[in-house]
Amino acid sequence: MQERQATGGDLAMLRRQNAFGVLQALRASAEPVTLTELASRAGLSRASAEDLAAELTEQGWAVEVPPAPGSVGRPARRYRFRAECGYVLGLDIGAYRVLAALADLGGNVVATARRPVLPETTRDRRLEAVDEVVTDCLTDAGVEAPQVWTTAAGTTGVVGAHGEVTLSGAATDWTGVPLADHLGDRCAGAVLVDNDTRLAALAERRLGAAREAQHSVYVHAGLHTSAALIIGGQVHRGHGGAAGEIGVLPITPWATAADRLARCGAVPAGVPYREAAAHVLGAARAGDAAALSAVDRYASDLALGLATMVATIDPELVVLGGGLAHSADVLLPRLRDRLGPLCVRTPDLRASPLGDDRVALGAIRWAIDHVETTYLARNERPDTDR
Amino acid sequence: MQERQATGGDLAMLRRQNAFGVLQALRASAEPVTLTELASRAGLSRASAEDLAAELTEQGWAVEVPPAPGSVGRPARRYRFRAECGYVLGLDIGAYRVLAALADLGGNVVATARRPVLPETTRDRRLEAVDEVVTDCLTDAGVEAPQVWTTAAGTTGVVGAHGEVTLSGAATDWTGVPLADHLGDRCAGAVLVDNDTRLAALAERRLGAAREAQHSVYVHAGLHTSAALIIGGQVHRGHGGAAGEIGVLPITPWATAADRLARCGAVPAGVPYREAAAHVLGAARAGDAAALSAVDRYASDLALGLATMVATIDPELVVLGGGLAHSADVLLPRLRDRLGPLCVRTPDLRASPLGDDRVALGAIRWAIDHVETTYLARNERPDTDR
Repeated sequence: MQERQATGGDLAMLRRQNAFGVLQALRASAEPVTLTELASRAGLSRASAEDLAAELTEQGWAVEVPPAPGSVGRPARRYRFRAECGYVLGLDIGAYRVLAALADLGGNVVATARRPVLPETTRDRRLEAVDEVVTDCLTDAGVEAPQVWTTAAGTTGVVGAHGEVTLSGAATDWTGVPLADHLGDRCAGAVLVDNDTRLAALAERRLGAAREAQHSVYVHAGLHTSAALIIGGQVHRGHGGAAGEIGVLPITPWATAADRLARCGAVPAGVPYREAAAHVLGAARAGDAAALSAVDRYASDLALGLATMVATIDPELVVLGGGLAHSADVLLPRLRDRLGPLCVRTPDLRASPLGDDRVALGAIRWAIDHVETTYLARNERPDTDR
Repeated sequence: MQERQATGGDLAMLRRQNAFGVLQALRASAEPVTLTELASRAGLSRASAEDLAAELTEQGWAVEVPPAPGSVGRPARRYRFRAECGYVLGLDIGAYRVLAALADLGGNVVATARRPVLPETTRDRRLEAVDEVVTDCLTDAGVEAPQVWTTAAGTTGVVGAHGEVTLSGAATDWTGVPLADHLGDRCAGAVLVDNDTRLAALAERRLGAAREAQHSVYVHAGLHTSAALIIGGQVHRGHGGAAGEIGVLPITPWATAADRLARCGAVPAGVPYREAAAHVLGAARAGDAAALSAVDRYASDLALGLATMVATIDPELVVLGGGLAHSADVLLPRLRDRLGPLCVRTPDLRASPLGDDRVALGAIRWAIDHVETTYLARNERPDTDR
């Protein structure tokens, strides 16, 4: 049978796919890419790559950079992704602090701002703090609000389908806050909201300890204990955004584990409550018997909740983050000892390599993913940015 | 910029995609499909649909059927998927029975065979029973072994990456059986092996109660209690095939729940152990106080294990299957009452509409999925079938 002609629609679709392939090849490289490399990475002829690179440059997605210094012969033309063509905001709205980080579309953080808050801070004041850190970031970076294509926020609490907080245990006046609506009124672009621990898990998947794992559990060990899942490489929200809410199970001691550690006999008078649990881990490291016993109990409490998630999804890896993960040298071996006997197949256990801004970093990755699927793949820009 | 020519490779790929689209449109329809309908469903011109239908017919994937009786004017040409062009085998290898079902590529079961076994049956005898049911099916249907493109088996126990049983609680001489190797020596085509409960979950997802749900939990309530997960529409195996193994958790009573029900005071002397639990559910339905109390306890035991999975993945739906699900009228309301207080968000709870052959049905779906991705999408046939 004869080959028939492809239709115009087919060709336009192929061309858009190829343009996106070139864009992705540019985005994937930290260094400028020559046309020859670009053609090879995008699986195109050099002529097609040149064509599409010129088009992407004209559209503001790419920029040609001067030839590499010291090139011999005819210098190779080189291009890079124009990461500064747009920005995203990542927010971390927790019980004890509010943090904003502004990044370009390459994920490079160009400004951060934070405000301390408390679990008992009123809803209005916490939202005001959110507005303040957003404004601070934009001002510091000299970026206008319409240049922010997507804002992603991680908040303490269970987050419903419309970006509202349906249940908050850690912040007292936070249940019912329509967070996506609040941010939507202030942000020019799209707004995404999810649980903070879930965005920490995303950060581990994309930048941290879970980069290689298809299925992993992230455990936040801090003043509260929480968890989130990566399944099939993706953050798992569940049907109603309540996946990973192990703390509610009466048969696991997560709801009280950190508090019990902080109130154990190994904490001297004068150590503030917020620092008590970390103090106990330090004392355990130094060999204090009461602290060692309290840490053993804490590891056992963590393991009981963790074992239910491990039995359910059989992850390759468990990543431990949060304030207490700074003492992973003390905590991880004990957690491993307690977890093993509870598992059919014991997962790897690793400390997070990311710092305390991982929720905001996860929010930035999420926002960039949104930009990629919404705008980059369609060769479009948001309405805001005109 | 001008539109450039698509390459020959692009066009060949497009053509193969379009042929697969036509094949899928034929497969999706229980009735023969006219060329006009085919074009519309595959998103092609009528000429292209005619072209590709002729090609698929020549290749043996499709067959033209006579015009619909009573057509007026020029009769519309109609085609159907040639489901009989290949076969798949689905096996259910349990503690108490071994079942094989042979189906054509449309999933139509053309033969089944079964053998009773016992938990204490030796490994050799159980494997022999497997060989016997396979032979019976082929003989009954008059199908030759090389016509079976793919064999999929669900077995009791945890299944490792190479189709070996790494751990079996329900069948005593079954841990360590290299089941995929055994089947591979006897079956001409590809061999797939997974845990039986997982294939029951797949059957619910594709044919049963979970068709509409992205995330669901299937609970097998029988002589043993087990569970499997559907996440993002897909069966979730976990990293080492141990997902859903809730029964091992010491904090859940699944390992002993069915046994406790079967041994409760409501069972008269003379009722065999295998029928005791079902008997108790019947007595509870009739209002027997001891039976009601035992069923309440059983529902509470099920709910405790189920709650850990619900808290972990937040499913939309829980499907209850297995022998005791025949008494769903007695069991489900009690399970719902016990589960609710343990959940942040309580999933729907439904009884399986599928019969006791659901594992084999799930195995058939899995085998057909394998045929689809391995052979149909590439327009190829297995080596066996020549």
